[in-house]
Amino acid sequence: MPEFVVVLVDPKVEGNVGAVARAMANFGLSRLTLVNPPPLGDKARERALHAWPLIEKARVARSLDEALDEIDYAVGTASDVARNEKRQLRAPTPLRDFAAPVWNVKGTVGLLFGREDFGLVNAEIERCDVVVKIPTSPDYPSMNLSHAAAIVFYELFSQRYEPRGYRLASRQETDVLLAQWDRLVRALALPEHRVKIANVTFRRLLGRAMLGKWEFHRLMGVVKGAAKKIESQEARR
Amino acid sequence: MPEFVVVLVDPKVEGNVGAVARAMANFGLSRLTLVNPPPLGDKARERALHAWPLIEKARVARSLDEALDEIDYAVGTASDVARNEKRQLRAPTPLRDFAAPVWNVKGTVGLLFGREDFGLVNAEIERCDVVVKIPTSPDYPSMNLSHAAAIVFYELFSQRYEPRGYRLASRQETDVLLAQWDRLVRALALPEHRVKIANVTFRRLLGRAMLGKWEFHRLMGVVKGAAKKIESQEARR
Repeated sequence: MPEFVVVLVDPKVEGNVGAVARAMANFGLSRLTLVNPPPLGDKARERALHAWPLIEKARVARSLDEALDEIDYAVGTASDVARNEKRQLRAPTPLRDFAAPVWNVKGTVGLLFGREDFGLVNAEIERCDVVVKIPTSPDYPSMNLSHAAAIVFYELFSQRYEPRGYRLASRQETDVLLAQWDRLVRALALPEHRVKIANVTFRRLLGRAMLGKWEFHRLMGVVKGAAKKIESQEARR
Repeated sequence: MPEFVVVLVDPKVEGNVGAVARAMANFGLSRLTLVNPPPLGDKARERALHAWPLIEKARVARSLDEALDEIDYAVGTASDVARNEKRQLRAPTPLRDFAAPVWNVKGTVGLLFGREDFGLVNAEIERCDVVVKIPTSPDYPSMNLSHAAAIVFYELFSQRYEPRGYRLASRQETDVLLAQWDRLVRALALPEHRVKIANVTFRRLLGRAMLGKWEFHRLMGVVKGAAKKIESQEARR
């Protein structure tokens, strides 16, 4: 598993440094290197909130070269889109294509983010092993620095995220519910073709929603209860 | 294809409204509804940048109910994690699982984001057709409002994003390059077992990187040139 180091190159706005730190904490990252940061005070702290300790223990470097001395694999981020395959210098990889295989490596992976106004310059991009881009609308590709960072962190985190999931209703449970639904529909004395349509509709709805076990119990209470009630009303007539 | 409406419920900080608008424009969204927004002035404009027109034409609603009157399908966003399957009220769907199928529907889909401090309240969550969560570190799940919004927009956009792609080198081209590499390695007069290792290493490297056509031409120039040069030096000895 790689160890990630977030590297902000010449950030100008202290609030952005704070916002990036918060996003790091949201996605379980903790190593931050700041290349030529501005003074970091109240505004950085306000945006960092509980992630302020990440800034306090951040490494401060005077140049990108200095920052890269502890990094095995440098990942540049760029929002501009290479218009032409020949523009090999940037030739960016879409974020998602990068985010899965990077987890297979061991070593220190630097995630480099450039200046708020014009990102990483060409000399910096040349030092990167890969350039990653976030797909954006061609009408307005220029993203806020901390938004770009949050999205990169989210994408990396998501690749390792095991959804908690929920227990599906079993086949038997689904069949029991469908039988009660059929009983309900028939209690309404609908014509046979409408019964069939209603049954298939309910079955497809449950299927598309991937019915959970708890939902099964809740729906059973309602459907079975309604069917019984209507049947007993009809019997009393 | 659905039409998306972004709904900010009781946002308190005008800068956040601006930042959300910018993120919307980054990912091609344009319809914004603001429920009880704060006064929106210079700070919102500074953060919105080119997306300021989205705020100027935003709908302002006095209540969530009013905002929902034009929305067919309401998507709540929540950062907290349901600890128990029984907590059906929130029972959130991971963002990625939501982002793909939603594109299959026609209608107006509202993306609801709650207050900076405590998100959507239960009465609002009850009005939602689905609750979506961004997977985060359990140590610090509380995200900045505009970060959460940017990530949701990114995930939706990515599902429709057709990467531009690049033309792979053809099988023939790769074989030609491998042959020149073999020629280069042999020109170095390495022992046969090291020739084999060097060849297999280079083949795997090209394969893992999925060599592009332009890269093929560039590498060919170098590898073939180097092989020729060394051969002619050796011949001159």
